[in-house]
Amino acid sequence: MTSGLDETVEFRPSFDADGLIPAIVTDARDGTLLMFAYMNREALRRTRDTGFAHFWSRSRKALWKKGETSGEILEVREVLIDCDQDVLQIRAVPKGRGAACHTGRRTCFYRRVAKDGLEFTGDAPLFDPKDVYKS
Amino acid sequence: MTSGLDETVEFRPSFDADGLIPAIVTDARDGTLLMFAYMNREALRRTRDTGFAHFWSRSRKALWKKGETSGEILEVREVLIDCDQDVLQIRAVPKGRGAACHTGRRTCFYRRVAKDGLEFTGDAPLFDPKDVYKS
Repeated sequence: MTSGLDETVEFRPSFDADGLIPAIVTDARDGTLLMFAYMNREALRRTRDTGFAHFWSRSRKALWKKGETSGEILEVREVLIDCDQDVLQIRAVPKGRGAACHTGRRTCFYRRVAKDGLEFTGDAPLFDPKDVYKS
Repeated sequence: MTSGLDETVEFRPSFDADGLIPAIVTDARDGTLLMFAYMNREALRRTRDTGFAHFWSRSRKALWKKGETSGEILEVREVLIDCDQDVLQIRAVPKGRGAACHTGRRTCFYRRVAKDGLEFTGDAPLFDPKDVYKS
């Protein structure tokens, strides 16, 4: 069950067939799960070089500095990698208003799955996305 | 930028071309990121029906009850879904010895990316995987 990958100190991130690796963003201050996105090799490089989180947008097929439109940038404190080296954890401090989610909420995970649908947890938007994202 | 998916109370989980949705497991007690895996529709159904986390193993191509071999089961307290409804958060309480990672550690994210390789965070194994996973 264990492989050479899980005890090595060699950084060998595993990118999938599309060149992407999942990246889980948590708040460096209290560990709260904030968002989930993908990085390609260049997004990871820029994240490490600049100290601000960059991702690859699969829908827009573009490199993306988180917060470049909204101002909700993520200052990276630490990058961790999992046992299999195929998932990253980005420990970051949210800047701007503190909304990692494009809906204006602190976290993208603001609804719980209940018996008959979803329930909002009460994580209220900090801004109106219509004011931020001009379409 | 916002779509109908992000403000609805209708549960419409989005499975990818392989029928999978990413699932991020956090500790329900303190929010610590524990592990990352994938669910298919059946794994999600069993998770909701039994209250214990089930996943789809891409390498073994099999449905998998987390902890069925190791005893490290995850008692699910809450399932959340993200704005786009294509990622799940599983808030769970680890049972067994409290090691969500197959290496025997509490979390799979026990190494940070440093300038010249990886550094262990100091999250020590709670058991020797060789004693648990007979190959």
